[in-house]
Amino acid sequence: MKLKAVILNCTLKKSPQVSNTQALIDKVVAEYIKLDVASEVIRIVDYHIPFGVSSNEGAKDEWPKILKKLLAADIIIIAAPIWFGVRSSVAQMVIERLDGTYAEGDKKTGQFPLYNKVAGCIVTGNEDGAHDVAANTLFNLTHLGCVVPPNVDTYWVGPAGPGPSYIEADGTHHLYTNKTLRFLAYNTAYMAKLLKNHPIPTNLKKLIAEAQKESHEQNDVEKEKMLHG
Amino acid sequence: MKLKAVILNCTLKKSPQVSNTQALIDKVVAEYIKLDVASEVIRIVDYHIPFGVSSNEGAKDEWPKILKKLLAADIIIIAAPIWFGVRSSVAQMVIERLDGTYAEGDKKTGQFPLYNKVAGCIVTGNEDGAHDVAANTLFNLTHLGCVVPPNVDTYWVGPAGPGPSYIEADGTHHLYTNKTLRFLAYNTAYMAKLLKNHPIPTNLKKLIAEAQKESHEQNDVEKEKMLHG
Amino acid sequence: MKLKAVILNCTLKKSPQVSNTQALIDKVVAEYIKLDVASEVIRIVDYHIPFGVSSNEGAKDEWPKILKKLLAADIIIIAAPIWFGVRSSVAQMVIERLDGTYAEGDKKTGQFPLYNKVAGCIVTGNEDGAHDVAANTLFNLTHLGCVVPPNVDTYWVGPAGPGPSYIEADGTHHLYTNKTLRFLAYNTAYMAKLLKNHPIPTNLKKLIAEAQKESHEQNDVEKEKMLHG
Amino acid sequence: MKLKAVILNCTLKKSPQVSNTQALIDKVVAEYIKLDVASEVIRIVDYHIPFGVSSNEGAKDEWPKILKKLLAADIIIIAAPIWFGVRSSVAQMVIERLDGTYAEGDKKTGQFPLYNKVAGCIVTGNEDGAHDVAANTLFNLTHLGCVVPPNVDTYWVGPAGPGPSYIEADGTHHLYTNKTLRFLAYNTAYMAKLLKNHPIPTNLKKLIAEAQKESHEQNDVEKEKMLHG
Repeated sequence: MKLKAVILNCTLKKSPQVSNTQALIDKVVAEYIKLDVASEVIRIVDYHIPFGVSSNEGAKDEWPKILKKLLAADIIIIAAPIWFGVRSSVAQMVIERLDGTYAEGDKKTGQFPLYNKVAGCIVTGNEDGAHDVAANTLFNLTHLGCVVPPNVDTYWVGPAGPGPSYIEADGTHHLYTNKTLRFLAYNTAYMAKLLKNHPIPTNLKKLIAEAQKESHEQNDVEKEKMLHG
Repeated sequence: MKLKAVILNCTLKKSPQVSNTQALIDKVVAEYIKLDVASEVIRIVDYHIPFGVSSNEGAKDEWPKILKKLLAADIIIIAAPIWFGVRSSVAQMVIERLDGTYAEGDKKTGQFPLYNKVAGCIVTGNEDGAHDVAANTLFNLTHLGCVVPPNVDTYWVGPAGPGPSYIEADGTHHLYTNKTLRFLAYNTAYMAKLLKNHPIPTNLKKLIAEAQKESHEQNDVEKEKMLHG
Repeated sequence: MKLKAVILNCTLKKSPQVSNTQALIDKVVAEYIKLDVASEVIRIVDYHIPFGVSSNEGAKDEWPKILKKLLAADIIIIAAPIWFGVRSSVAQMVIERLDGTYAEGDKKTGQFPLYNKVAGCIVTGNEDGAHDVAANTLFNLTHLGCVVPPNVDTYWVGPAGPGPSYIEADGTHHLYTNKTLRFLAYNTAYMAKLLKNHPIPTNLKKLIAEAQKESHEQNDVEKEKMLHG
Repeated sequence: MKLKAVILNCTLKKSPQVSNTQALIDKVVAEYIKLDVASEVIRIVDYHIPFGVSSNEGAKDEWPKILKKLLAADIIIIAAPIWFGVRSSVAQMVIERLDGTYAEGDKKTGQFPLYNKVAGCIVTGNEDGAHDVAANTLFNLTHLGCVVPPNVDTYWVGPAGPGPSYIEADGTHHLYTNKTLRFLAYNTAYMAKLLKNHPIPTNLKKLIAEAQKESHEQNDVEKEKMLHG
């Protein structure tokens, strides 16, 4: 079965405004086509998504339908512009909404719903902050269950200070970005296929039970020490 | 063949001083034993390691022998205390020294030497900063070639402000830490085995060549436009 | 004239839901009363504030009236919960909206509108990330023109992992937090008064002109070198 | 009396190797000369400074003599290269060593030794991470007692990916950097003079005593509640 990537464009600008982040996403999508990976891009600000940390924040909330697509995907890519050195508020809002998935673990293994999915990150900014955006975003996604292969962040930033953005600056020619977007596409696709055939079997529930037992036992020893020590 | 984990203890304190980070490492090692993973802990400050960004900084440099062990490992764990909200200078120094490996890629594929290794992170601090340490450290390791499975950061921190450290505070009983150290051990071990049998095949050199071609072509189109546009 | 502090509560939860961040804000406000500093708390999510980086994002945008209050304040405090180790999306959105002020500098000096105001930061979370939130937020505010006195971040976080929040955990008793909220109040109040009497006189426009001259001269020398060198 | 700035060059490279960070420091020093501020640059790696968190780590430790200079300065500037998106290990080591000053507060007010000093930050890197370096470094310095005026970070970074450093890239012509290094010099100098004439009077000891009283009182109320429900 064809692999599926969902790419969340976390620009601050609603359609049909020009999004620099979208321009870089387009290049990743082109690579996925070569690799026979289907991809769907969702521009978050075009939907009504309330702030919150649950998977459903009420009647008008459009997050549930986006979440449904994420849960059906093999690869999840967060694409975000940098503002003030860190990821956009929209990207942060998306991560916050994913908090709701922690409570929806597999009944048997306790694995969170994003387990066995592969994460990647696309970043654009006119100068600085790509490492911070990618590090936090990929790390948050591992907490939520994703696997992060090597070299799955691709970004473009220009030199220090305000300046032209990705499109204006002809960042689309930038060798480092053109190189890393390919690394991202190939490594996420390979890992997604690998995990599809060999999903992580870890039983988190069993490990939690062990940890509880250990914590209690240690507490008991401590109480004993305090009483008689 | 038995899997091998190398854990770098990046405490500021030389042996035989008590290291809180070591106390948490010990618990991870105990899990690895159950999983039949061999592990070796290296306390970085006990070695003479100069600041630098190459793999060999001169005659007295002991980094080459540590690097050799890392290159022979299947799992690489950076264990670091938090100081001033971020990873210790020793952990940062280790990451800097790994910069040298970028230049030592595979002749055919261009893959960096840490490709197909699995990364994890252990963090201790008396209050705050674990996310920052783990996010940056795991991200840096993906840049260097490692794969990051889900939930492979384990940490202990106490409540806000100065206070007792991991050992004094009986953090060894802390359920969240005892739970996540197991997740780390199981998920790194599974992924290491998986990658051993199914190494990432991506040919970085080929992708770089493609990117160079694309970047030049775009540049040519642009020059044409400037001349005749 | 009485000093005025505006405190932006960047919780994700609309009124009248209980906000842990508000509980800590209340304690700071109580200190400001003792110091004869007037304070106004604004809960951002209770207003309609679109994503964006200008000071006015259209007819329904309520940011302009909040910005007006910030411009009339002597002290600006960002109060934010931690989510996934970093500041809330609402706090990030506030910082992004302040980007618009860069374009509204003083005609003569070029000083941004937040020059000569004093910044502080209040953070709550159930475990980890306070340093990251405060560091980025205070730094962003210095870019926008604010002065940061010593010890003007106050925060409460509990030990590692999910757990009770500030109110539930009786964080209101926590000595470190109760200490630092006083440092914040006293040091912001002193600095605000000092700056009111002795505003920073730096003429940014003049310095920019000097920098332009220098940059051009260097470029000229370089061109010369390339031609004849 | 003439103001004094101490600038710590936290490059990884020992003298006489070329330091890009030094090249940017030189430009700041030139501005300080115009402003009649004396400045001294200390290249940390040229000294024997052990890892640690106290002000004196034994007989061969050269930190005490550097600390002495910092304590005699009005302005403290940390100048650091970026490595892997964050500040160099040497800069982190310097911050860690400053931890020792917390214990050396004024007997009467409890103010830490760096109170009433002004902080600034200089950053160089070939691509990305300047915000992270400056945010953490300036924030750490406010914790230690320093005041951070507006726009006291100056940095140069090039576009995404590996590439030429500050000197090679002719970053010395870069307008944004040439502009912000002037802002840094003028605003730190003004603030240092202001604080010299109007030092922060906050009595931390008194506030800590108040906080202790409040924390205990709250604890008593809570115990009462628990006992009598």
